Amino acid sequence: MADGNGLVAAYSDLLILHGAIVFFLQVGFVSLEVGYGRSKNVKNILLKNTINILLCAIVWWSVGYAFANGNSAGGFVGTSGFFHDGGINVSTRNWFYSWTFCLSTVTIVSGCLAERTALVSYPAVTLLMAAWLHPVAAHWAWHRNSWLTGLGSGEGCRFLDFAGGTAVHVCGGLVGLVGAALVGPRIGRFEEGRPKDMPGHDVSSVAIGTLFLWFGWFGFNCGSTYIYQGSLAASSAATSSLPPSLEDATLSLPPSYDSSASSYSASTASSAYLSSPSDRVALNMTLTASVSGLAALLLSSLRSGTVDLCVCCNALLAGLVMATPACGFITSWAAVVYGLVAAAIYLGGARLLLRWQIDDPLDSSAIHFGCGSMGTLLLGLLARPAYVAQLTGSSCGGLFYGDGRKGGILLGLQALGVVSVAAWTGCLSLAVFWVLRRSGRLRVDQVTELAGLDNMEHGGPAYPEFNMVPYNTGSTER
Amino acid sequence: MADGNGLVAAYSDLLILHGAIVFFLQVGFVSLEVGYGRSKNVKNILLKNTINILLCAIVWWSVGYAFANGNSAGGFVGTSGFFHDGGINVSTRNWFYSWTFCLSTVTIVSGCLAERTALVSYPAVTLLMAAWLHPVAAHWAWHRNSWLTGLGSGEGCRFLDFAGGTAVHVCGGLVGLVGAALVGPRIGRFEEGRPKDMPGHDVSSVAIGTLFLWFGWFGFNCGSTYIYQGSLAASSAATSSLPPSLEDATLSLPPSYDSSASSYSASTASSAYLSSPSDRVALNMTLTASVSGLAALLLSSLRSGTVDLCVCCNALLAGLVMATPACGFITSWAAVVYGLVAAAIYLGGARLLLRWQIDDPLDSSAIHFGCGSMGTLLLGLLARPAYVAQLTGSSCGGLFYGDGRKGGILLGLQALGVVSVAAWTGCLSLAVFWVLRRSGRLRVDQVTELAGLDNMEHGGPAYPEFNMVPYNTGSTER
Amino acid sequence: MADGNGLVAAYSDLLILHGAIVFFLQVGFVSLEVGYGRSKNVKNILLKNTINILLCAIVWWSVGYAFANGNSAGGFVGTSGFFHDGGINVSTRNWFYSWTFCLSTVTIVSGCLAERTALVSYPAVTLLMAAWLHPVAAHWAWHRNSWLTGLGSGEGCRFLDFAGGTAVHVCGGLVGLVGAALVGPRIGRFEEGRPKDMPGHDVSSVAIGTLFLWFGWFGFNCGSTYIYQGSLAASSAATSSLPPSLEDATLSLPPSYDSSASSYSASTASSAYLSSPSDRVALNMTLTASVSGLAALLLSSLRSGTVDLCVCCNALLAGLVMATPACGFITSWAAVVYGLVAAAIYLGGARLLLRWQIDDPLDSSAIHFGCGSMGTLLLGLLARPAYVAQLTGSSCGGLFYGDGRKGGILLGLQALGVVSVAAWTGCLSLAVFWVLRRSGRLRVDQVTELAGLDNMEHGGPAYPEFNMVPYNTGSTER
Repeated sequence: MADGNGLVAAYSDLLILHGAIVFFLQVGFVSLEVGYGRSKNVKNILLKNTINILLCAIVWWSVGYAFANGNSAGGFVGTSGFFHDGGINVSTRNWFYSWTFCLSTVTIVSGCLAERTALVSYPAVTLLMAAWLHPVAAHWAWHRNSWLTGLGSGEGCRFLDFAGGTAVHVCGGLVGLVGAALVGPRIGRFEEGRPKDMPGHDVSSVAIGTLFLWFGWFGFNCGSTYIYQGSLAASSAATSSLPPSLEDATLSLPPSYDSSASSYSASTASSAYLSSPSDRVALNMTLTASVSGLAALLLSSLRSGTVDLCVCCNALLAGLVMATPACGFITSWAAVVYGLVAAAIYLGGARLLLRWQIDDPLDSSAIHFGCGSMGTLLLGLLARPAYVAQLTGSSCGGLFYGDGRKGGILLGLQALGVVSVAAWTGCLSLAVFWVLRRSGRLRVDQVTELAGLDNMEHGGPAYPEFNMVPYNTGSTER
Repeated sequence: MADGNGLVAAYSDLLILHGAIVFFLQVGFVSLEVGYGRSKNVKNILLKNTINILLCAIVWWSVGYAFANGNSAGGFVGTSGFFHDGGINVSTRNWFYSWTFCLSTVTIVSGCLAERTALVSYPAVTLLMAAWLHPVAAHWAWHRNSWLTGLGSGEGCRFLDFAGGTAVHVCGGLVGLVGAALVGPRIGRFEEGRPKDMPGHDVSSVAIGTLFLWFGWFGFNCGSTYIYQGSLAASSAATSSLPPSLEDATLSLPPSYDSSASSYSASTASSAYLSSPSDRVALNMTLTASVSGLAALLLSSLRSGTVDLCVCCNALLAGLVMATPACGFITSWAAVVYGLVAAAIYLGGARLLLRWQIDDPLDSSAIHFGCGSMGTLLLGLLARPAYVAQLTGSSCGGLFYGDGRKGGILLGLQALGVVSVAAWTGCLSLAVFWVLRRSGRLRVDQVTELAGLDNMEHGGPAYPEFNMVPYNTGSTER
Repeated sequence: MADGNGLVAAYSDLLILHGAIVFFLQVGFVSLEVGYGRSKNVKNILLKNTINILLCAIVWWSVGYAFANGNSAGGFVGTSGFFHDGGINVSTRNWFYSWTFCLSTVTIVSGCLAERTALVSYPAVTLLMAAWLHPVAAHWAWHRNSWLTGLGSGEGCRFLDFAGGTAVHVCGGLVGLVGAALVGPRIGRFEEGRPKDMPGHDVSSVAIGTLFLWFGWFGFNCGSTYIYQGSLAASSAATSSLPPSLEDATLSLPPSYDSSASSYSASTASSAYLSSPSDRVALNMTLTASVSGLAALLLSSLRSGTVDLCVCCNALLAGLVMATPACGFITSWAAVVYGLVAAAIYLGGARLLLRWQIDDPLDSSAIHFGCGSMGTLLLGLLARPAYVAQLTGSSCGGLFYGDGRKGGILLGLQALGVVSVAAWTGCLSLAVFWVLRRSGRLRVDQVTELAGLDNMEHGGPAYPEFNMVPYNTGSTER
């Protein structure tokens, strides 16, 4: 007989739906980048990002997934599951859901390189990132046998990265930063040392892309909850010595399989009227984004006098990044603090990029690298022990919660995680961009850049029927 | 041991996914409004709606959620749960899902005020609506201890509002109507008493925005089904006299509400091969929208000779609004009737707005206020008792089903609900718009309106590379 | 007693969410078609596709659903469930999820007819397809008592069409092919026998529409998994003679709480840490799309020298179509093969269309008919027996897996399925387009086509504020 259990959705099923929503992030990224770009490069941006998706899928299938999630070799890298097949009774992480994370990581870089990078460079970077850079970082951050997650377990602590503050955002943001620096600014972006505005050609696409991203982010963060719940359930099942059949004979159908549940399970079990932990996740990420977006908008309006839509959108995204490593582990008050910090990091980071004359058209590196690392670090102060225990089984919390010893250990672990992933990412990306630059394949030539990549490489403009008034085509004023 | 229950998704998990889809309504609203707007105001519209999301989140977290869902003070307003934290074992309504409802309510107003309202006014309205107006209306319509839902229980009846006909659409639509009337028409919209067409600058954005809204609406209506199922299950658990512990006594709370469930629950249990009630919801809302869209298109084509895409889109949305209070409680034949009525209300309402010289650029007030209230009222005629019982436990149905006494009571309750929410909304919104108008902060000045809000307040046009042919910039012909 | 099962989501609930995502395909189709169209026909395209949705809903409710899913009359057509009502304890297929499949089938045709078909023709085709053509094909392909699925059962074999290779894509693609041929090419598309490029007016809409479609396709394919799981569970429940209370002491952990379940059920049951079969589905469709997109892009770049975004998008879609009939039944290696074949079929098919001077603006017929039929056929070679058994209970696999007898039978069944659905579709669509053409109602007149349908029939242009540079308005060069 097929009983109720055979008929109900499990976490793996939810992860498919959340994965589809995470996939939607790609629509957001490309809308944002197209909107910020100039009309002469629209096709190039669209194609670059599409190729990225396709390539990333093949690479994650063949090797990336195995390096990230396979049996750990010494805690540093996975070694099984190459050319993954979605067999029967596969008990590792969902391929699809984990792929959408890799894909997001790689796509972060895309914006930083927009409008002047050669068509062959970005796929090369995708290849490296999806095959090796991100998988190793993800292995460190999330594999239960990695060197990083194993540290501190004697003290009941472990490194925390809820949904990818380090493995996704530090990784993607830092590659983007290195790339933007080594590719160099777009022609005309800095003149005599002073930045010149290069407004995107379609602000509507920017703002709607931001909302697309927010939608996709719910899949990213809320879905991650089920990874934790599934792991906890699996490990408690594995260590259980109780016989399964606790239902006493008086029970009639459908069998109440809950008999000996852990208190965690029990709370889930009654979730008809209990909120899922993913509701907390959704609340915290929403709050962080909202506080960050409003705070930055207010600050920038006071300073400049105009009310800038793009600042609001970018700050909102900074808040979402900031929430990513933390949103399952913190209270809503901490989420407000996170939001304020995100606004500060975004505004400060964007200024720093200008001062350093690094041209990052979407400010992605400030947003993702800055907020991803700070969000991970702040857990050392603000992680609430009860929430950490609910999702990971370890009872460690931030310094704010009073246990100085455990808090100190956690803070140290968080710092170690960020620093090691940043070092890994920085070195590798520096090497690959350096090689690309030395080989002369990193950037398109001046003529192509001025004429627009669409006309030179993609057979014509993206909007052939619209009468355009180009601008910013170089050193001349419009 | 990890039992089955620990491993399966519960209603709360489904609500997260549905909530993300409801969030997508925001993309629909803003696409629609941008499309109907003129190109000179695109940034303003986008920013207005983005700020709205951010502000609404903070307000709903701090007070709105508590007023709507907290412990009821005399049936009029909630009083607990301020600064909500997504704790452990929280047994109230999902924060996230309920937030997306508040957000939708507030955003309805946005379209009515487009293209001439001062940037500060709309956030002020958002503040009022998210903090007080909508929460109180939602408390009345949905809280199990509210004065409204308590009425008629002696007769086995209760006020019905499936997913927000009153609490969302009457509320949002009426605020919009009052706002549009008090802000006054855009310059040039009415000349010598005759309306002048002001076509939007991007019809593609209108039609695709309509489809976005339809998609989001599935989250709205179908997701609401699980609120009812969850409440029913919870209340049957609470009133159960069986000990919760089929599980052994060592298990602490939460109680296994399942002991004494109704036959309804049993039917769900076998739902591998049974359709979920949410399938009925999806069917009914789809039918209502389709009938309404086609009927209005046909009528308007016969009258005007052109086949107007915007009429079709608006009527479709009117159908979705009309279905919202009812789609779980009616048969598919009733859904067809609902669709025909929706088309009539939309077409009639839009004409009335013109006659009254109220400039509502998207006809939102006719669509949301008109169809929201009529859809709620018609339940007094067409609610099918078996469906009402399946979802609410009360056995009351519409007059059409023959029980004149119960039907009469239901019809009275529905009218009472609509009238009281409309009165509440009307008074409050009249007050706030009056104050804003008296203070001179409601509307931008003529120069700004004619030049476009983007140029005057937001640092330049939304599409700087496109060569535009502006029109409707005031009293001169194009 | 209602146990935990009453509170948890079942397959039917998942299908609602997947159905909403499938609905999103409509956004993708219309974005793609708008992007490929010229600006003078944008409103017409949007309206045509919107009417299509509305009409299809009413028709599927009234008759289509019944013909497809009702009690089978001799295995050829369903005969119950007209004017479907989403009652209580309905045990047939979800109405909503099945509707989105019908809707997708019909919308495939839309692109093939774009920019020159009369507004009345496409609804007529919708009517035929939704009421009769697709329902019958779906009945043959999927109903458990159809003549087609019954064949081969003595040998443990059955016709396989995972999520609509024949019932959706062969059906839609072939109607489109016939339609495009009989409507004739757009004015200026072929001059003196040579095709002339007619670039779309918004490539951004094309590429983003493609990503929308990919997103929607996850609902299409992954959701279909639950149809199979639900059917299997239902049929095993129906035939079970065991008492429900299976937890006997012999059960070991992870507790197979379904004691007497099929091995399939057991694997699902423990799915907290097991991957759902839908993860395999997502992997395979992703791989197929990615391989196809990259292969075609590479090939076409080598041949033409430009890197064409539209080729990449179309080939990606061809991969998705190709995966549709197969993605639950094949290994990931087979998915790679599928991708390569899809690229070849798309590129070859597009060339054939040009040679035959059939004007299919989106190459939809090549993509959907070509890849839909080939994907179904190839299962005869590449279906993996274990996967087929997991989802359908029948143990038949492709020739590649060594059992020549069963493989041969399967291959024959697949060919029979494709040929019979193609014959059914071809004859019917030929008849209807012939009648429409003879009646002179198939195509707009020359003046309307040259001036643009928006100006002539829909009250003005879609982008009234943009300064346009029309092209391809007939036989003159731009």
